[in-house]
Formats: sequence, structure tokens, C-alpha cells
Amino acid sequence: MSFKQPIPTIRRDGDRAVILDQTLLPHRTELRHLSSLDDVAHAIRSMQVRGAPLIGATAAYGVAIAMTHDAGDRALETALEVLAATRPTAVNLHWALGRMAARLLALAPVARVAAAWDEAEAIRLEDMETCAAIGRHGLTLIEALAARRPGPVRVMTHCNAGWVATCGAGTALAPVYAAHARGIAVEVLVSETRPRNQGLLTAWELREAGVAHSLIADNAAGLLLARGEVDLVITGADRVAANGDSANKIGTYLKALAAQDAGVPFYIAAPFSTLDFACPAGSAIPIEDRDADELLCVNGVDADGHLRQLRQAPADTAVRNPAFDVTPARLIRGIVTERGIAAPGALRELYPAEDVPA
Amino acid sequence: MSFKQPIPTIRRDGDRAVILDQTLLPHRTELRHLSSLDDVAHAIRSMQVRGAPLIGATAAYGVAIAMTHDAGDRALETALEVLAATRPTAVNLHWALGRMAARLLALAPVARVAAAWDEAEAIRLEDMETCAAIGRHGLTLIEALAARRPGPVRVMTHCNAGWVATCGAGTALAPVYAAHARGIAVEVLVSETRPRNQGLLTAWELREAGVAHSLIADNAAGLLLARGEVDLVITGADRVAANGDSANKIGTYLKALAAQDAGVPFYIAAPFSTLDFACPAGSAIPIEDRDADELLCVNGVDADGHLRQLRQAPADTAVRNPAFDVTPARLIRGIVTERGIAAPGALRELYPAEDVPA
Repeated sequence: MSFKQPIPTIRRDGDRAVILDQTLLPHRTELRHLSSLDDVAHAIRSMQVRGAPLIGATAAYGVAIAMTHDAGDRALETALEVLAATRPTAVNLHWALGRMAARLLALAPVARVAAAWDEAEAIRLEDMETCAAIGRHGLTLIEALAARRPGPVRVMTHCNAGWVATCGAGTALAPVYAAHARGIAVEVLVSETRPRNQGLLTAWELREAGVAHSLIADNAAGLLLARGEVDLVITGADRVAANGDSANKIGTYLKALAAQDAGVPFYIAAPFSTLDFACPAGSAIPIEDRDADELLCVNGVDADGHLRQLRQAPADTAVRNPAFDVTPARLIRGIVTERGIAAPGALRELYPAEDVPA
Repeated sequence: MSFKQPIPTIRRDGDRAVILDQTLLPHRTELRHLSSLDDVAHAIRSMQVRGAPLIGATAAYGVAIAMTHDAGDRALETALEVLAATRPTAVNLHWALGRMAARLLALAPVARVAAAWDEAEAIRLEDMETCAAIGRHGLTLIEALAARRPGPVRVMTHCNAGWVATCGAGTALAPVYAAHARGIAVEVLVSETRPRNQGLLTAWELREAGVAHSLIADNAAGLLLARGEVDLVITGADRVAANGDSANKIGTYLKALAAQDAGVPFYIAAPFSTLDFACPAGSAIPIEDRDADELLCVNGVDADGHLRQLRQAPADTAVRNPAFDVTPARLIRGIVTERGIAAPGALRELYPAEDVPA
């Protein structure tokens, strides 16, 4: 019943890390060795690894790799700074770096290498457990819907919050995989998720796992919800503020609005590492702007199966490309965490003050 | 001050019609001759011509072309049937065919050829006037916003409702062009409009006309509205029901929801030919489903400037590809027509019963 990643998204290989290069998916499954701090920072920035939990874990491995080369105070400080600057929105990055700092700063340099790898491995293994727990809690939502009407439970998601976004089964998709393992029929509506098309990763994951799904344009979410063709919307998150406002991949907010208009419940699935109790509300969450070419160029394979890029609009076209939006707590029915499901305003009941980083 | 199409979207050339092939835009501006009923039906279905007003006009030319070859009763009936079946949602198609039928059915076959070309030309010329009138009425909205705060008026649109969608200046973009001609600074937020990317046509039009604009992913509309970076949302429509519910390109409804949530006015710009008083509400509007490859394949130019297509997901991926959604009247501040701006529930005040087709 427990979920095993078909290909590990990240793992240790001696003094390097091996990642699944997600920029080549769904066309090619290629592994890539990360051997230096620069490799790791590049992998995060270029989205070779992506997904808030996996970004956090990758940053932890990045610190371990940096320590392998130089475990001095200055090198540790540099690693933490360089990795913290890679991407602004996913708070898991800072959570993981904070954990690494707390473990390593107190140690003499000589003890740091082993401790850093140990902590990175711990973060990875804990994320597996966390995903499994989110799956168990989210499963109760799907079970309740399955009992209400015949036919498959129709789940809409956005972006990719599946196993490739984590070290385990995923966040938003963990309940889907748990339901599938129980024999509950589920059909997932997968949004393309322009401009980076992470929906294609979701479709690829679901196909491999044998879960029924349909790909839709992001624009189609409203019509399908309004027509009553969706039972549940569930997405991951990159940062959940103390009041429950949730930053996630751009376009999530539009789905939450349409879900509310249709009376369909909208849930966020996110582990503790995504919760930012120091951030009072969504308006304080930094939103990353990314490169214009993400919109101006398109990728795919040609008739010979070669990966290619085409330009769909002139290179000097003015572009606005924010990578995340904020779904206000009022649109969120609940947040599915590893400790259970909370109303967005009641997260502290699951995570008492002692768990909140300073 | 009056708008002249840089390239006519459709015009008569002897016993043929010449169209601007929109499937090649924004990369190439190629004209295409339509010589037969089949040519015209294919041009509409494949979206070589698109945009509700232009679909109507093209269908009218299609009848004229068919009459040129055979003006008999059966040929007229066939032309009307074949063209009516090309696309289901835009009611302008049926309006134009209704006009052609009313003009031609009463005539002897010998008189039909000249009358058909005459009527098609009349529809085209009237559409130019209609677009200009929509521009004048919509301009008042932009002028009011320009007076309210310094800086450009920030207009969000969806799909393409510019000159390439009509025989004139466009519908949603006509007020933008009218404002630009008056020297009012306007900045247009252009949604990519997956899966067919008609936003790229809009960006191309605006660039040629020297109107400031930025391309955005469809997903970004919610964030930009929520941040207060949009003053007005205006789109075209493919069919407006009697109660004001409006079918338009898929994704319009999501923008209308986000506009409402942000307190930004949302307008539809549409001529009489788009109004369907025989259709009581949006739920009765037929919604076209289009081919899966619109989502699974992407188009652009390679480094050598050649138009190419790539596959971004496996050909057997299950797809849902509805081409339109319905924005309920409650989300629409007003409908900008050639007779003025009406609240969606008050369209009949502008168009008294004698104008309503049976």
C-alpha cells in the first residue's frame, strides 16, 4: 500500500546527488549528477527539480555537497545564502536551509560533512512519511465523495503536486494514489499549467500509475466546474501564510474562484514545511517573476522524437510572467497536512507554537 | 480617425474570396483564395478565419461563391446547410446565413449570383460600421478611466476580438484603437488564450498599431487583477443569450470571476449579429468541443524561421477541449454594442422586438 517512487526524484550517490531532470519530462527520463553548489543552485533555478517539498530537500543536499568540498564557516554561510536566493516563493527552501543551519552551525567543521548528509537524508525520508500521511488524510475526502454518487470521483488539480514534486507520493496527488491503491475509481482533470506545462508531468505520472485522467487547457477549468463535472479541487502550495492564504502555481486562484462559484470544495495539500507562520497573510508572500521566454517559446518533440524548442512570438514581445498567485483563505475549504485536515484559519490547532520557527 | 484594416481579413476577388490565413499568424501574413463551398467550410472549421463577426461574413461569401457555381434551389440549400454545420457556438454564422437565405430564397436562380455577392459585401461593409460604432461607445469607458488616475488605462482582454476577428476595427479592441487614435494612453494585457493562442494574434495586431501591451499566461489574469493592476476587462463574444449570459472563448468566465473578486468592471463588446434573443440563457448555448491535438501539439518557428509543429504530450493522451465557456450575466457590467452600452439584462431596450429574428 505504501507508495514507492518509480524513479527517485533525488538521492545520494557518494558525495554527489542524483536527480531526475524534470525539464526533459515527459519526453525523456534522464538522471543528472549534481556535484557542486553551483550545480544544485542551477538545478533549482532552472527547474530541473521543482515542487516545493523537493526544492527544500534538494537545497539540503546542496548544503551537504558544499560541505563535502569545504566545511568551513564561510563555505557554510555561502551555501546557505546561495541556495536561499535561488527561488523566492516556496518557503520549504528556507525551512530546509534553516534545519541544515541549526544542525551544522553548532558543529566543528570536521563534523559537518557527515552531519549534513545525515540531515539531508533525514529530510528526504521524512518527506516520504509526510506525503504518505497527507495521502491518508486526503483519502477520507475522496472516500466521502465516492460514497455520495456512482462513478469515479472527479478530481481537478493544477500544476504538478505529485511524486515528482516531492521525495514521496506527492502532496495533492497523494490522496489520489491512496484512493487508487484502495480500488476507488478516480478521474483526474489535469490542467496544462502554462507557461511551464507542469500539467504534462502530472499526466505522465498518472499514466505511469494507471490512474484515469484527462488533460485540459487551464482556460477550461471554469466551464467544467460550472457544468458540475468536478467533485473536488485539490492543489499543492508553495507557501501557506498564518491566516491560511496560500501561494501556489499561477492560475490556482482562478480555479479556487471557479470552485467557489460552482459550490465545489477546494483544498490545499501541504506539509508543515510549506506553512509560514511568520507570514501573517498572502499579501506578504514574495511572488517570483520568471523569464519571458517561458511564454514566448514552446517545447516538444519533432517527428523524429528529438526534443526541440520553437518561438511562438517575437523575442522582443513584452511579457509579464509571475509564477505564483495567492488563493485567499476564504476560498479554501481545508488544508490537508500530515497531521490532518485543518480549516485555513485553524492551522495552529494542528501545529502548536513550539513547532513554529522563530 | 476611422480604422482601416492593414490587410483586409476578407474581400471579394472576382468570383472568389481572398482571406488572410490566420493559422499562419503571427509568423506569416499569407492570403488565401477561397474558390468553392468546400474551401470556405474548411477555412471556417480550421480557423483560417475566426472571430464571430468574421465567421459570419465569411459564411456569406461562401454562399455567394456557391451560387456562382450553381444558383439552383438545391445548391442554395446545400450551401446554407454545409456552412451552418461548420461551427456551433458563434451565432453570427446563423445570422449571416439567415440574411443570405432571406435575400436569395425569394429570387429566381438567375438573379441569385449578383444578389449573393451584393449581400455578402453589404454584411462586410456593415460590420466595418458596426465595429466603428462599438469603438465610439466603448471609448467612453476608457475616457472615464483615463480621467480617474494618471498613467495609461490598463485594459485586460482575452482571445482576439481585434480587427482580425472582424471586417473592421474589431469588437473588444475597437475602443482601444479609438482611444489610441485620440491620444489616450492604453496598455493592454493580452492573454495567450490556450489552446489556440489567439492572444498572439492580439499581440501582433497591437504591435502593428503601436499600442502598448504585455503578453501574459492565461493563468496570470487572477493575480494581476487581485493586485490592482487592471482597470477594465473587455472581451468579445460568440453568442449573447437574451438574459445577457455570454459565450466567449474558453477562459473568459475565469477572467470575469477574477474581475468581480477584484471589483474591476467586466464588459462584453458584441454587435447585434452576436445577440441571440431566441436563446433564453447561457445554458442553452451549444459549446463546441475541438480536436485533442490543439492541446497536444504546439506551433512556432524554428531558428531558421520555418513554421513547425511539435508534440508536447503523447498522441493518445485523453483530452477535454471545449472551445468556449459561458460568463453569466451577473458578472457582466455591460455589453458594448453598436447602439450603445446596455446592462446585460436590458439588451432589448437597445434592440426592440422588430429587430429580433423569428
